[in-house]
Parts: sequence; structure tokens; C-alpha cells
Amino acid sequence: MNKNYISPFKPNNFIKFKSQYFKAYTFNAGFKKYNDDLLIIVFNKLVKQSAVYTKSSTPSAPIIWNKNIIHNLCKVLIVNSGNANAFTGKKGLNQIKKYAEVASKIFDCDLNQVFIASTGIIGEQLNSNLIITKLKIIKNSKSKNILEAAKAIMTTDTYPKIASTIINIKKQKIKIFGIAKGSGMIAPRMGTMLSYIFIDIPLSKKELNKILKDNIEETFNSISVDGDTSTNDTVMLFALNDKKTLSQKNFKLIKLISLGVRKVMLNLCKKIICDGEGISKLIEVNVINAKSKSQASKLAFSIAESILVKTAIYGEDPNWGRIIMAIGKAKVSEKIDQNKLILKFGNFIVAENGMMSNKINIRKLNKYMKNRIIKINLNLNLGKNKRTVWSSDLTDKYIKINANYSS
Amino acid sequence: MNKNYISPFKPNNFIKFKSQYFKAYTFNAGFKKYNDDLLIIVFNKLVKQSAVYTKSSTPSAPIIWNKNIIHNLCKVLIVNSGNANAFTGKKGLNQIKKYAEVASKIFDCDLNQVFIASTGIIGEQLNSNLIITKLKIIKNSKSKNILEAAKAIMTTDTYPKIASTIINIKKQKIKIFGIAKGSGMIAPRMGTMLSYIFIDIPLSKKELNKILKDNIEETFNSISVDGDTSTNDTVMLFALNDKKTLSQKNFKLIKLISLGVRKVMLNLCKKIICDGEGISKLIEVNVINAKSKSQASKLAFSIAESILVKTAIYGEDPNWGRIIMAIGKAKVSEKIDQNKLILKFGNFIVAENGMMSNKINIRKLNKYMKNRIIKINLNLNLGKNKRTVWSSDLTDKYIKINANYSS
Repeated sequence: MNKNYISPFKPNNFIKFKSQYFKAYTFNAGFKKYNDDLLIIVFNKLVKQSAVYTKSSTPSAPIIWNKNIIHNLCKVLIVNSGNANAFTGKKGLNQIKKYAEVASKIFDCDLNQVFIASTGIIGEQLNSNLIITKLKIIKNSKSKNILEAAKAIMTTDTYPKIASTIINIKKQKIKIFGIAKGSGMIAPRMGTMLSYIFIDIPLSKKELNKILKDNIEETFNSISVDGDTSTNDTVMLFALNDKKTLSQKNFKLIKLISLGVRKVMLNLCKKIICDGEGISKLIEVNVINAKSKSQASKLAFSIAESILVKTAIYGEDPNWGRIIMAIGKAKVSEKIDQNKLILKFGNFIVAENGMMSNKINIRKLNKYMKNRIIKINLNLNLGKNKRTVWSSDLTDKYIKINANYSS
Repeated sequence: MNKNYISPFKPNNFIKFKSQYFKAYTFNAGFKKYNDDLLIIVFNKLVKQSAVYTKSSTPSAPIIWNKNIIHNLCKVLIVNSGNANAFTGKKGLNQIKKYAEVASKIFDCDLNQVFIASTGIIGEQLNSNLIITKLKIIKNSKSKNILEAAKAIMTTDTYPKIASTIINIKKQKIKIFGIAKGSGMIAPRMGTMLSYIFIDIPLSKKELNKILKDNIEETFNSISVDGDTSTNDTVMLFALNDKKTLSQKNFKLIKLISLGVRKVMLNLCKKIICDGEGISKLIEVNVINAKSKSQASKLAFSIAESILVKTAIYGEDPNWGRIIMAIGKAKVSEKIDQNKLILKFGNFIVAENGMMSNKINIRKLNKYMKNRIIKINLNLNLGKNKRTVWSSDLTDKYIKINANYSS
């Protein structure tokens, strides 16, 4: 729907491989006119998973479905793009039940071992037959690689998002990889950020939960294109390969795996923000020495989501007064001391001692603002807490993408 | 700086008159290249006032100055546009002291009977001499009418904002009038919404405070162009004419006056939002039957400030899924029941019973979206609280105004 626009951050190369632990099938099921819009991942065996879902109080039917599954074993994952199955009432849940039942029969598993996600238009009923038709031909279909899988869940993404890393523990190589799509409520009449991450070692539900919980805040919860939270956001972490045994499995090992997962998550969420609708520049906001974690977060988001800050960055204007405004407007319980804060664009100081710094260098600042990546560094000098948040600038392309699309 | 753009809501006619209770002087003091940028209001006698200021934790020097004045008597009000005197440290406060001292000598009043406001660029030091020069020639200057006064405080406003009403109590006519400028952080590198409202009857500080407090939430605190709060926002209410006696002064009378003040405040704040940067459509969000006041407010603002909702309205797209998203993302403590809410554009129902309404009429909806004023009506069916919020749509003109302005 916006074929001409491609993010300037689109990678030149994409990795592609097949996992030995699952088969991925993709189809054009008819939710979208062109391109694949259905991804079905069938695990060789039951795998353990952990997930975090949108905090929206109007969650979609797939979110309700998955949350109702108490245990953590997964055999099949069915993701469609082009229809979010959100605000579709009981009908929406019934449609899921219909195609999940077909899947459970075909793959010989329990109904609650079928996990679901949808992304696309909110409020339109989903036709389960589109998925059922493809499930029925799946056994005669060819499995696809991870790149094809990433493509099948795209909506208005301008490139597929894949990340992979290998961690070496003694003589073992542990592979961690994942795919993602979207960026907040990025798309015209569409929603959803989805991400699926896989580790090829056996981990308990508790370990998976901990790894996800430890990393979600500083990765996927640290990006914002438009401050608009989708009804369908989902991040799932899977432990593949229940046969592999680890030479030692202790706190230190889990820590290493967690760092690997974090690396993959960070890579994916940066790929998402770099494909934020209409992006011309990536904004990184670093708040340091805050009194509390919450103060650091609220200030970082207040700056990163301010549309006046975002338009200034788009205009390559070192307009630090708008950042002061965004600091001031944030609803934080701990008081800010105007006279203590130090504000920089990259390494260039702009404000200190409660006013414009006398070290300000407009010529260098103007040059810095022409970069693709703009860093806003705020030192509050109040404590020891920090937060980094990434966002995209707000451009006329964003307006075009989101306004010039009529239903 | 954006000479070509004029709000489609610009009124055809403007009222103009002089008050018998004060003299208004306007000058081009040199903060801006063209047009008046300094308004000095000199009251015939000391008048009582009540004020509300920005909740920003990085307030400007004028806000700090005014807040330090404990009593409520005002002789002179000095407002400049073109420089916000914000984030200017102790130097900024010293500049105020310099010109306030000159004013107190010229008008023979105490230093703390001089009230100050500034609006414009954040972070630049204000040169008090620009104001002092004009103060020194004020006695030989001609006083101006209220329209000229409203013009002198404009920054990138595309029209001056004035409102007036008369309430009749028995045989007395009580005039209430006011001026305002801006709309949130509306302007390139500038800030500030300012408003001054006058009542030509004697009222106590307590009564003034109550009238302002009772009306501020549902007027000036109910508009949002970009969700960006200025460092300089100020609303001041003055009681003129300490000689006039009221035949009766009781609860009912104050209530009538309060309603008159509310009318003027509502008129001014609608004029502000209708001059929101780049506006093409006015958005009115009505949330009714909420469980709590706070739930109604948070949902109304979440919808009114969502940039995906704002761009959809700009695109004349009845994309109600984005409103469901904005309802879902609001951080409200009381649970929302998806199945109970009823959502309408104007009188046209779009969603009910947890899904798209089967009474939806796309043809009529598309026609409705072409209106200049778009009403989003949300019935939560949970309680008895309500809130109305006004905002402007988000257009490519907004991006142009805020990005294509280099320092």
C-alpha cells in the first residue's frame, strides 16, 4: 500500500537457513492480495515456550486464546497477517477454535498445544476457512527457510526481520535465532508487533520465563514509533531440542544464554524501529543518573515520543528547547533539578547549569544533526538509574502512509 | 515563519473594544522582526487575580516569578512574545527583576504587583532592555484595543483569540472577556499557551480561585494539539472594577458568574485548538458513562492524542479500529469491558457487543468523515462519569511547520 517507500535502514543482506527442529510453511491464504500471509510452524516434538503479550485492555482474540493456555507446551504455531482478529468478539474466538481443531487433528496434538497470532486490520471478522484450506494441503507442501517465514508475517514492513547468534559454552555451540515484524501500531488500519525467538537447547518453563522477563524491558519495551500500542503484540521464546544435554546447567550458563537471547531481541527490535513508518532517522534517547528506574523510563519515553522532538530531528534542527519541554511535561513523582541536568546531542553539550551551555557549538551541532542516527543524552545527576529508548523521527511520509489510506 | 498557512477555522470577524478598567499598550520591542511582540496592561487601580500555571517541572522564569508572589494584587501585566525566557537559569530571573523594577517605579506600585509572562523560543536569554526602552515611553504612547492586545501575544497563531460575554443579573450587566494565544507547544522552537480573562465586578481572591478551579479542567485542560506541554502555560483571571457593588452576592450569583467565565474560557480554548498547527479538522472526543472521572479523562486523551487516530481523521478514514487500539493502550486502573462499549462517529454507530456493529453504514460514515468537525462518541456503559476533549488532526502541514524550521 506504500510500495514506493523503503526504510533507509533496510539491510543489504538477509540470512536464511532452515531449523532442524521445526518445519515452517508459508502460504498466500487470501488475507492479503499479494505475497504470503500465513506462517505455520510445526515443531518436530512438543517444545517449551514462554510468552509476553500486549498490555492493551482491548486484546485480540489470539491473545485471549494463548493466555487461556496455562501449560507451556507447543506443537504448532499459526500466524496470519492481513487480519488482526481484534475486537471481533466471541465470533473471533470461535474462528480460532475451528482452525486450531483442524491443526490439532492433522498434527496429532492437544487443542491447547496450538498457539495463534494474527496481525492486520482491527475489527474485521477472520474467515477460518482460509487457514483450514491451507492446513489440509500442508503435508504435501514444501517447508520454507527462516527468511520466507519472516516475510509471511509482514504487513507494511519494508523488509523482513531476522536475527541470529551462536554462543559457545565449552565445546557446545548454542544457536539462538528469531524473527519479528512491525513496529508498534505501524500500519494503516493494521496493528501488531510479533516476534518469535528460538534456542536450540532444553530449558525449563521457569528458565524461559526468567530469560524473557529479564530482557523484555530493555529491548521490545524500549522502542516506540508512535506511542500507539497494538492490540496484538506478542513475543514468544521457544526452547527447541529436548535431547541435547548440557555439560553443566547453572546460574552462569543461564546468564550466558540470557545474554545471547538479549542480543537477538535487541537486534530484532532495532530492526523494527528502523522500519518505523516513514522513518528518516533513528533516535536513541539515553537517560542516566536518574533517581529511580521509573524516572529514567518516563523521561526517556517522554522525549522519544514527543512529536515536537521527533519533527525537530526530522528537520535536522538541534532544537534542544523541545527536549527541555519534554523533560518538563513527563509525569514523574521524583522532582527534577533543572540546574543539575546536563543535556547533549551525541557528545555535544547543549544545556547545563539550568541554561544553554556556553560550550555550545552550533556549527558542529548542525553537522551532527545530519547523521542517520541521533543520540539524545540526558544526565540527571540525581541517582544511579538509567534507561535507553529508541524511536523514529516523524516525517511527512508517516502522515502519507497513515492518512492517505481509505477504507 | 509559515505565512502561507491559515487555519480553516479562522473567524471572519473579530470584536474590538477598550476596557474602562485598564489601558493596554502594545509595541514591537525587537523580540520578533515584524509585528508587535510586547503587551503591557496597566490597571487603573490594583485588581485581584487568580492564576493557574503549567505543571511542567521545567517551568520558565516568568512562571517562577509569578508563583513567588503570594498575595493576589496586580497593577501591571507584562507579556512578551518571541522569547519564552525558559531554561535561562538565574540570569533569566534577573532580567525580569530589572524590567519589573522599572515598571514598579513608573506605575508607582510594589515590585510584587507586577506580573510577567513570556512566550517564544526556549533557552535563549531575554534582553530586559528591549522591554525597559518601551516602558520608558509608555506614558506618551496611545493605548490599544483588545484586538491589538490579542495580536501582540501571538507567535505562530494564524489569528488572534478574543472572547466576550455579558451576563444579566437583575438590572446589572456583568461583562466577562478574555484573550488567548497559542495551543500547547504549538510553534517552532516556541512554547506557550497564554490566556487572560477579565470580569468587571469585585470578587474576592477565594471566589476568583474557585471560579478558575471549577472551570479549568473542562476547558483549557481539555485541549491537546500534540500532547506536548509548554514550559510557560498561564491562565489568569482578573476581577476589575472594585467600586461596583452587587445587589446580592451569594452562591447562586457566583455560580452564574462562573458559568459566564466558563463560556469565555471554552470559547478561547476552542479558538486555540482550531488554530492548532496545520489543522484541517477539529476532533471532539466524548467519553460517557465511565466508571470514574479519571477513566473518562484518560480514555478521552488517549484517543484525542493518538497520532494514528489523528492521521486517520486527516485522511477522512472512518478507521474505528485505531480508536479501539487507543482505548486499549490507555493506562486506566478500572477495567474496560470490550463487550459493553458502544463507539460512534457522530451519530453513526461503528462498534458494539465487542465487535463491528451490524448497523454500520460505510457510505454514510465516509460522508460524515468529510466534515470539518469530527465527533468520536464513546459510551463505556460502566458508570456515570464523562469527559470531553478537543484536538486537531495531524497533517503534513504540521510536519512542515515543525520540521522545516532551522535554528
